[in-house]
Amino acid sequence: MHWLAEVHVALRSGIADPEGQTIGSALRSLGYATVTEVRSGKLMRIAFEAVDHAAAEDAVTEMCLRLLANPVLETASWDLRADEQQDAEEALP
Amino acid sequence: MHWLAEVHVALRSGIADPEGQTIGSALRSLGYATVTEVRSGKLMRIAFEAVDHAAAEDAVTEMCLRLLANPVLETASWDLRADEQQDAEEALP
Repeated sequence: MHWLAEVHVALRSGIADPEGQTIGSALRSLGYATVTEVRSGKLMRIAFEAVDHAAAEDAVTEMCLRLLANPVLETASWDLRADEQQDAEEALP
Repeated sequence: MHWLAEVHVALRSGIADPEGQTIGSALRSLGYATVTEVRSGKLMRIAFEAVDHAAAEDAVTEMCLRLLANPVLETASWDLRADEQQDAEEALP
């Protein structure tokens, strides 16, 4: 079964985020004076296979811990959904 | 009223994504052999003020077009929600 995980990796609150601060300054100087804070992060869309939802969850958790996020500085969260389009393609005769 | 926009900026499909390909190779070499594709992108959490939902939507659309995404190469999507915690803090006596 095909799965699509959308992993969000963001810096923990309290960790300095110069990229976000720069984007915030740029937005304010473009006229969006009410922008108070911008935090930047990474987004990864991962297509993979797993037998069921629990196995897919476990795989994503492990990927985040082992590669995608640095748990000291970053937090990771994800949306996991079945990639039905892929499954349908495979099911065609 | 305070709003929190979570903007996802991703490369259009068809645009080469070397960062995503590298993450994909790394995941496969860590043993996640079923990973077929990884697409990388950016995530920005923007806190700002606007009078109502429509004004907030317009502001985020404009920010994306003017600064956050390059419409030739990238697509932007966002979740917009009222930042009730902030509003509650301001409402305290």
